[in-house]
This record gives sequence, C-alpha cells and structure tokens, in this order.
Amino acid sequence: MARELHAVVAGGSIGGLAAALALRGIGARVPVFERSAGRIQARGAGVVMQPEVEYLLERLGSSAAAVSVPLRRRQRIDRQGKIRAYDAPQLMTSWDALYRVLHHALPADTYHPGSKLVETAEEGDSVVSRFADGRAVTCDLVIGADGIGSAARVSAGIPGAARYAGYVAWRGLEPESSISERVLLTLRDAFTMYAVAGLQFLTYLVPGPNGETEPGRRRVNWVWYMNVTPETLPHALASRDGTRYRTLLPPGQLLRTTRLSLLESARQHLPTVLADLVGASNVFMQPVHDLPLTRMRAGRVALLGDAAGTVRPHTASGTSKAVGDALSLAHALKDWDPATPLPVEQLGVWERERGRHLRTVAAAGTQLAERSALGIPHAPQFLKDL
Amino acid sequence: MARELHAVVAGGSIGGLAAALALRGIGARVPVFERSAGRIQARGAGVVMQPEVEYLLERLGSSAAAVSVPLRRRQRIDRQGKIRAYDAPQLMTSWDALYRVLHHALPADTYHPGSKLVETAEEGDSVVSRFADGRAVTCDLVIGADGIGSAARVSAGIPGAARYAGYVAWRGLEPESSISERVLLTLRDAFTMYAVAGLQFLTYLVPGPNGETEPGRRRVNWVWYMNVTPETLPHALASRDGTRYRTLLPPGQLLRTTRLSLLESARQHLPTVLADLVGASNVFMQPVHDLPLTRMRAGRVALLGDAAGTVRPHTASGTSKAVGDALSLAHALKDWDPATPLPVEQLGVWERERGRHLRTVAAAGTQLAERSALGIPHAPQFLKDL
Repeated sequence: MARELHAVVAGGSIGGLAAALALRGIGARVPVFERSAGRIQARGAGVVMQPEVEYLLERLGSSAAAVSVPLRRRQRIDRQGKIRAYDAPQLMTSWDALYRVLHHALPADTYHPGSKLVETAEEGDSVVSRFADGRAVTCDLVIGADGIGSAARVSAGIPGAARYAGYVAWRGLEPESSISERVLLTLRDAFTMYAVAGLQFLTYLVPGPNGETEPGRRRVNWVWYMNVTPETLPHALASRDGTRYRTLLPPGQLLRTTRLSLLESARQHLPTVLADLVGASNVFMQPVHDLPLTRMRAGRVALLGDAAGTVRPHTASGTSKAVGDALSLAHALKDWDPATPLPVEQLGVWERERGRHLRTVAAAGTQLAERSALGIPHAPQFLKDL
Repeated sequence: MARELHAVVAGGSIGGLAAALALRGIGARVPVFERSAGRIQARGAGVVMQPEVEYLLERLGSSAAAVSVPLRRRQRIDRQGKIRAYDAPQLMTSWDALYRVLHHALPADTYHPGSKLVETAEEGDSVVSRFADGRAVTCDLVIGADGIGSAARVSAGIPGAARYAGYVAWRGLEPESSISERVLLTLRDAFTMYAVAGLQFLTYLVPGPNGETEPGRRRVNWVWYMNVTPETLPHALASRDGTRYRTLLPPGQLLRTTRLSLLESARQHLPTVLADLVGASNVFMQPVHDLPLTRMRAGRVALLGDAAGTVRPHTASGTSKAVGDALSLAHALKDWDPATPLPVEQLGVWERERGRHLRTVAAAGTQLAERSALGIPHAPQFLKDL
C-alpha cells in the first residue's frame, strides 16, 4: 500500500480550503496554514456561483442553493434610472458563506491561523515549510494558495510580479435592512449593471453575514469599478489608521475626503439609485492587480488560485478557478505513492491544462474590462482631485 | 501489452483533426470521417492564436509564428474615425492555415471526405459507425467532432438543441492587395474594434489563402456582429442559388437586395473606413447559435468542440476549446487497454473538467455580447427592411 501523502497548504482562503478538502478526499494529510491570526478578510464579498464550487459543495454534503440567493433577472440601468431587464436566473453567494462551509468541513486541528509562511526549502525527497513563529513542517508537497503576494511562489523561485491594472473596485456589502425600500425595489431579484467609459457598477443580493438567504436578512453587494491613475491610487488607499494598505482598504478606513470625493463622483456619474446605495454604505476598496501566469509549479511547490496568476473580476471566476485548480491537483496526485518520485508527468498535465484555462479566462476578463474602457490608455480617469 | 485503441472521429474540421492527431500520439488508430466531399468550408475565417493550438502546432513540428500574422496594437475606432490605440501584441491565424498544418500531419489514407455519419450503435464491447454511403466501421470509441448539428450527438441520445442567439456575423476575408491603401493604413498591425449598442465590428489581418504571412500577401479578416430578429433572419439568409442555408451563407450567395441593405447600414452606422471595407468585400454570413452543454459523453461516444456545446465567438476560444478537448481526451485515454472496460472514471473527469471550462468561457462570451447589447432583449435591431 502507498504511504500516506503529506501536503502543506499555505493560505486559508477558499482556494486553500478547497485544496485541503480535495487532497483529504484522496487520503492525504493536509494541514492548512493561514497568515492572518483572526478571521481572514474577504478578498471578494459577493461571489457568482460556478460549477466548480457547486461540485465541491455537493461533495461536502451542501449545495449551491443552500448558500446562495437566487436572482431572476439581469438588468441594465441608464443614467436616468431607466431599466431594461431580461430573465436570467443565477445563484449568488458570498465569500463568507463559502468560507463557512469549507472551513467547517475541515477538522479544526488541521487549520492553523496566525501562521505566516516565510520560506519553503527542498530537502532530499521532501520539502520543509518554515513559518514566522519558528515552526518548520516537513512534507511531500507544498501547495501555495497564498494569493497574489504568494510567499510560496517567491520562495520557489517562480517568477512573476503583480502590476496595477489601472482601475479600482469600490465596494459595499450592506444588510438589506439598512437600504431604503426604494433602492431595494429597483435592485431586488436582479443582477444590475451600469457602465460608461472608464467606470462600471454592478450590484446584486448575497446571503447575510451568517449565510441567511431569506428576504430581509440578506445583504446588498455592490462593486464600482473606476479608472484611477497610478498617481492617484496611493491617495485613494490612504487610511484613517495610517496603515499603508495595498490590496484592500477595509471598511471604515476611507479618509473623510476620499469618501466625499467618491460621493460627489457618484452623484455626478451614477444613476441616483446607485449613488444612494453608495451613500448608504460602509465603503471599502480593492485595487485591481494583474499577476500574469508564468509557472504553476517548481519542484515540490505547486501554486493555485491567485498565487498562480490572476483573472480580472469581470468573469466572476476567481473563486471557481482556485477551486478548479484544487480539484484537478488532487486528481493529478491521486495515484501517487509519495515514497516514489514526484509524478511530474501528471503534474505537468495539471499545470498545462489549468494554465490554459487561466489564460483563456484572463483574456476574456481583460476584454470585458476593455469594453468599459477600464484599465486601458486614453480612457477617462476619476477622483483626480484626491 | 495493451491492444491498440481503435477510435473513429466524425468531423474533419480543426477539432476532429486535433482529436485524430492527439489520439495517434497515444498510439491509437484513428480514421477521420468528414461529411463534406470537397474541401470543407471554414466556419471561422480568422482565428486568434491560443495556447492549446500553439501547443498542438509545436508537437507537430510547426509553431504559432509560422502560421500567424503578428499584430502590435489594439485600437478602438469611433464613428468619426478617430482612433485610440495601445500596444497589445497578438498572433492572428486563420482557419485554413491551421487546417493545412493539421491535415498535412495526418496520413492521407486516414482522412475520408464525403463520409456522412448516419448513426452510431453500441454492439457488445464496441461501437459501430454507419455512414450514408453504406459503410460501417467498428471501433472502441467514437469521437463526435461534427459541430453544432452533430449526428454523433443525436445518435448517442445526448440532449441539446441549438438556439439562434439573436445576432449574426457578417464577414469578409479579402486579399490585402484588393483593399485600398487608405483602409489598410488604418487597420494594419492592429486589432481594430468598433462597438455601439446592438452591433460590433472587428477586423485584423490573417495569413493569405496559402498561409502567406508576408506583407502584401495576407488577407484582411473582418466580422460585423449585428442584432437581427428571428423574423428577419430567414430573409438575411436567403441565397442566390435558392439553397436554404442555416449556419453559413457562403461568399457570393448574398441576394443583391441584402447586399444593398447591408451597405446602406454600413454607411449609416459604421466609421467610413469600415464601411469601405464592407463595400470592397465578398461578404458571407454566419448566424450565431447557442448549443448549451448538457453532456459530453454517452457510452462509447464522446463529443468535443461545438458538438459538445458552443461558446460565443467573442472570446476567440471556439477553436482552442475544441483542440483542448481533444488533447485532454487523449490524456484521459492514454492508459486504457481497450480489451478492458471503458475507463469511465477518467472519462468522467475529462467531461467534468472540460465541461467546467466550456461553461466558464461560454458565460464570458455571453457577457461580452451583452456589453455590446448583442442578443439581448430591448436592444437595437438592424436590417428590418429585409
């Protein structure tokens, strides 16, 4: 009988949890090490349900419907508030609803928060992961699911540098109950979109903070993409607590001046109902970055999700790509006896197929951004007075 | 030693050729049966080079560069002809350039034109393909690469019906030498796009009819997507020779009245340089259809490319998806000894992973269409006087 596979997952967000669960499914021992000490911050608030995630949920005895708000329509709103809708059923979930199910499915003693990966080093037929607290864990394979700034990636010598894409996502995630009835009437049951050159706004309902899907207890999720020059970006990211945030300006951290500029921009550029929504929200912000795929593997380190390469948010595929990477990786490893050499052919096929998927989706995302003149030269820029 | 795998490929376009080549790569015997007697008609004229195709070309001793025209820029043109360009290198090839390389790589006696698949029937541990000319071929697995109207799909009882997406693609593919210098100066070296609600135009250079990539011997490829109601569609498809074309109205078959309406529409809605290009072209047309994925396999029949499910052309992924399906299928079958039962687990993983890829790309394509109000309700419609 083959020896038990021992893997280490760096990164305890959706992709890392999915990797641990998928590898446990092939009989592996897989501790997860997450850098954040407390509950980790959601990179994405609303998440469009996709087949990979649905498949994983079903394997865990849950379902897409159990963690999602069903939408009935897609609708475009114009500057005057006129709406053109059409039927398009879709399931919307949230990062925290998914996190809850995946995290719950893992034995508690396999999840290690507050564990910052410092480096990985191959030693003979194994690989050692060293953490900031001094711990060292030896295993057969390290899975870097540690995001765009992946320490696993850097340590494995896999090249790649994240680049600001030229636009940001202002976001809100508010209890349904805190939004006016007039706004809710317009947005309820629909995926709503507004787009003009250089900006794009979309909003839809997602489950409540504890996964509630009943009307009245859900949340309104919105994202406002906006071209912001690289020069303006640091000002937009300036925070109340003085921290220099880079990938996420958390709720409550917008400077008062930033908030005022944003609200003025909302009044000037958005339909009233969307500007009202922004005004009623505890806004947070994520700059959009590109990390192009180079390699997904080097020696005994494999990367997945954003650590391997990013896709723009417009295809709503970031989460499902990470989960798909994880499921496929487990399949590639399922016949491996770790007492034998690394299954480089299987891993090569995994890397090639997932890499192609990433490139296709990344190209589609860039095209979707381009259609709204997001992140391309000669396009309108916003918040220049910051 | 395992018995040699014997497969049959139905459909001799890019996806079918790729399947035959990939399966030959794992040692299989794979005749290809193509319905058309002569040279088969290109479903796509210009093809954006993608990683799957590049990989296959390299395995065949060719390369992406050898069959492609390199572009330097992407540019958006407005109604007045003003251009906003930015650097974006890209390789553009053509259906016929790819077909030539793939077809040449197959032994001539394995390619059977004029062979229309009528049905497939499982008989014991094999499957029989029957053709319109009375031939019957027994093998281990039938690969249906026979497009949106797949006979293999119907015969295998895999459900699915193509649905008109609400818009068409008018197309042209003209020798560089027949296009005016003024038009060429604007379009050369760039991927050019024009889009307003309900229509979208894109154009770029591709290799010449015999694969020529030198300036002066290439072709100008253009596609003009346009909302056309289901009621107007039959009129737009009406042909000079009286044939009721459904999926492709070939060059030379547009009615004179259709051509006049189209040119009038071009003058009215397009920048002059693009209207001139339409006027100088031998136009052909493809309605856009959706065939949603249901299953990719039933018993000993596996479907790939459009036969399995379509993606909208906007992601430029139709060809690469078919090739990716083929490469992955060969990988799934590589350890199968056909004297043993079908490797249903491997085929199940293939179906699941390729199905997810299809769904993701299809959703992105639908979104890209939506951004130009193509194929959605309440959008402008064209050629209503036909």
